[in-house]
Amino acid sequence: MFHPFFKNHGPFKISEVLNLLNINLKDYNYDDKINDIKDLSSSQLNDITFFHSKKYKKIAIKTKASFCLTTESLKSDLPNSCTPIIVDNVLVSTSKITSLFYPDSINDEFDKNVKDINNTKFKDKVTFGKNVLIGTNVSIGIDCKIGHNTIIEKNVVIGDNCSIGSNNIIRNTIIKNNVKVLDNCVIGKHGFGFFPIQNKNLRYPHIGIVLLEDNCEIGCGATIDRGSMSNTIIGRNTYLDNQIHIAHNVKIGENSIIAGQVGIAGSSIIGNNVKIGGQAGISGHIKIGNNVEIGGGSGVIRDIPDDSKVMGYPAKNIRNFLRENK
Amino acid sequence: MFHPFFKNHGPFKISEVLNLLNINLKDYNYDDKINDIKDLSSSQLNDITFFHSKKYKKIAIKTKASFCLTTESLKSDLPNSCTPIIVDNVLVSTSKITSLFYPDSINDEFDKNVKDINNTKFKDKVTFGKNVLIGTNVSIGIDCKIGHNTIIEKNVVIGDNCSIGSNNIIRNTIIKNNVKVLDNCVIGKHGFGFFPIQNKNLRYPHIGIVLLEDNCEIGCGATIDRGSMSNTIIGRNTYLDNQIHIAHNVKIGENSIIAGQVGIAGSSIIGNNVKIGGQAGISGHIKIGNNVEIGGGSGVIRDIPDDSKVMGYPAKNIRNFLRENK
Amino acid sequence: MFHPFFKNHGPFKISEVLNLLNINLKDYNYDDKINDIKDLSSSQLNDITFFHSKKYKKIAIKTKASFCLTTESLKSDLPNSCTPIIVDNVLVSTSKITSLFYPDSINDEFDKNVKDINNTKFKDKVTFGKNVLIGTNVSIGIDCKIGHNTIIEKNVVIGDNCSIGSNNIIRNTIIKNNVKVLDNCVIGKHGFGFFPIQNKNLRYPHIGIVLLEDNCEIGCGATIDRGSMSNTIIGRNTYLDNQIHIAHNVKIGENSIIAGQVGIAGSSIIGNNVKIGGQAGISGHIKIGNNVEIGGGSGVIRDIPDDSKVMGYPAKNIRNFLRENK
Repeated sequence: MFHPFFKNHGPFKISEVLNLLNINLKDYNYDDKINDIKDLSSSQLNDITFFHSKKYKKIAIKTKASFCLTTESLKSDLPNSCTPIIVDNVLVSTSKITSLFYPDSINDEFDKNVKDINNTKFKDKVTFGKNVLIGTNVSIGIDCKIGHNTIIEKNVVIGDNCSIGSNNIIRNTIIKNNVKVLDNCVIGKHGFGFFPIQNKNLRYPHIGIVLLEDNCEIGCGATIDRGSMSNTIIGRNTYLDNQIHIAHNVKIGENSIIAGQVGIAGSSIIGNNVKIGGQAGISGHIKIGNNVEIGGGSGVIRDIPDDSKVMGYPAKNIRNFLRENK
Repeated sequence: MFHPFFKNHGPFKISEVLNLLNINLKDYNYDDKINDIKDLSSSQLNDITFFHSKKYKKIAIKTKASFCLTTESLKSDLPNSCTPIIVDNVLVSTSKITSLFYPDSINDEFDKNVKDINNTKFKDKVTFGKNVLIGTNVSIGIDCKIGHNTIIEKNVVIGDNCSIGSNNIIRNTIIKNNVKVLDNCVIGKHGFGFFPIQNKNLRYPHIGIVLLEDNCEIGCGATIDRGSMSNTIIGRNTYLDNQIHIAHNVKIGENSIIAGQVGIAGSSIIGNNVKIGGQAGISGHIKIGNNVEIGGGSGVIRDIPDDSKVMGYPAKNIRNFLRENK
Repeated sequence: MFHPFFKNHGPFKISEVLNLLNINLKDYNYDDKINDIKDLSSSQLNDITFFHSKKYKKIAIKTKASFCLTTESLKSDLPNSCTPIIVDNVLVSTSKITSLFYPDSINDEFDKNVKDINNTKFKDKVTFGKNVLIGTNVSIGIDCKIGHNTIIEKNVVIGDNCSIGSNNIIRNTIIKNNVKVLDNCVIGKHGFGFFPIQNKNLRYPHIGIVLLEDNCEIGCGATIDRGSMSNTIIGRNTYLDNQIHIAHNVKIGENSIIAGQVGIAGSSIIGNNVKIGGQAGISGHIKIGNNVEIGGGSGVIRDIPDDSKVMGYPAKNIRNFLRENK
């Protein structure tokens, strides 16, 4: 997990972590330090991790984390080196602990520390329009253009030869080389992730980023949310048409073409050389293989294997769909 | 009906009203004054109302209005205290009379009377970005933030502790406390309501407002149109994801969660604790009960009772949908 | 074909054209001049054209072009006056030659030559908001309004009595009289047209424009792409609701009403007096007749004859759809 833009405020004592969860844990050293919170596979000694579904059993058994937020029924799959912390709702507890380590990932207000680009070091380096604003911790490569009224908020890396259009708002994003972002996009905001609680929703922290790989193009009016625990990625040479919504943690492969008004829900993974027709929707947490074609208007609610052509709602083999709907 | 932002230019003499409709009505006093135009239930003595569908028969029979725009076939359901005015098209005539009383509700041009926030009383009260514009008849509570390039046009009330992002355009809207509006939204424009007429469409007046209740959140790129004769309301603690369209007169209850790219057509009513998946569409003039779950991509074209889970196009019981589409 | 905004850099010698395609053609005069590239029917003597599908056989046989990009199997349908140039991929070659004649149609960066409207001749003629920018080759009629932060880039003609809202970006567009464009629209960008090539996509040149006819209205958040070889046209008195996407080369007739979040894919043709419900999608390259009604949420993937009412995905006769889905 690569989350370069959010400062880890740890380490914290395990007692501080447990207090936050209102938990008493016997037989441990109250002064043990926890360095970070990570997922099961990337955790190291003195990290805390989380394990909320038996789907991750094979990874859990090998985790190197020292502590793990989990449930009574899952705890037996953890190695002896990892102390289980039993909680009612693993994801809610994970959110709370992540917020402790990364408090800056919660606040997603507009960046009030931006400056007019004319008052920055980019003045003579970038071709820019009127009313361009630049935040702190921004770097921009050579031969880049930034259109009118665009706001590059804090925590943005832009590579070489990129063209950013007008009226965009970008934060917490890495843009590689030769990338085009057209107009009116919002990139790098936190995702639509929270736990519904009567009267007050608990928002997930979003410590991930958006990563736009080389040569990709983002059409007008896109919204691309940054990842929560992982990143949102648009692959090399992948093109997005206008009015597309990409939710948090989505990963799209290389050389893919996504037509207008498509929406991809959180944490879904799209392969390489995928074509998605206009207005299609992809549910969350599913996997679309390589070389898949998805017809316009489709609603994809299950995994799609490599080399498939699908259409319909729910999406099925395109020949069957067209035969049944002559 | 609560329409605080549009000035009633009445009263008008009944003769003025009739002239506008090219109608001669016998046996009435030409100097009778009409105070206002309201719906059947909220009208009072010396108001004019309208009755265009037998669906409203039970309400019509109890109206307190002195006059009513209606048809030959419906007029017998009105009480004796209410003089029927027979017209060819009740809604077209209602539009014309509403425009007479509320001429300011027709014009929906950009607000040219906005000022840079630095030149307003909000300068020291609000945390704001670059290029923020504020119209007349605006109030803003304590601890509010307004992002870059946002335009608060005339007739906006913002409560305490609200966070309005960048690039928004807001008018004719009441925002309660602790509300978040992300970026690129347009809130409070007139709805897409008009009577198609060859060569020139007659637009409804929109004298309603948009009301965003406490703790609600509006995602990026939303369009929320104000009501025509009633208001458009987003309930307490209801969260909208990105790229959502809410048409005029829609009312959404409390604690509801609406995912990306959903569209809700005019005058539909959504209950409390409703979850709507991404890209779902709700037809106009229907009612979704409380505790309803609507699957992503669904097209809802009929009322949905409380406590239902539906999916599909048209939406049906979700178990049936999934069983039929294995 | 009417493409007033892109300068023809021709004529070119046929030898230059052939070099670009790496082709050796026997038996022709290397110094022959080619004036322009046009479609089969509008080409004249000394133009080059293209013929890529037998669908156009009847037009090909009558072309007046002197040269034609085509395939071995199609060339026999050309008249003797037209020399065939055999290529592997007609459309890719057409793109390359179009780019040679119209190099300005490839670059679609933000217009850095815009000026604040206060420094233009429109200062005393137009009613305008804050931060309005105007490019070169722009004309604006009488009684027009332009809202805040709107960018009228190069190559825009606006007629009389038009109302352009706030936050719009417009280029390469002709707007006739009495047109309303609401807010946050992007109009006149190149379309989503390219040939996918591993690692680097070849973009079509877009030498067409957007044409908004008299009295039409464009809702908030629209994206209307300009045409590639023809124009994108919104007909007289046609109204578009919010968040609509109109792709390149689409032509919509008169008096049509298109509800929120509709998407129309490239090159489709919509008739007069058509009503399209919210979130409906129209596939590319199809034809919708006059007086057609398309239900909300429909996915139209085939031509629809005049006077039809359709609904569903794929769209079918609406009575059948509703009967099958009671």
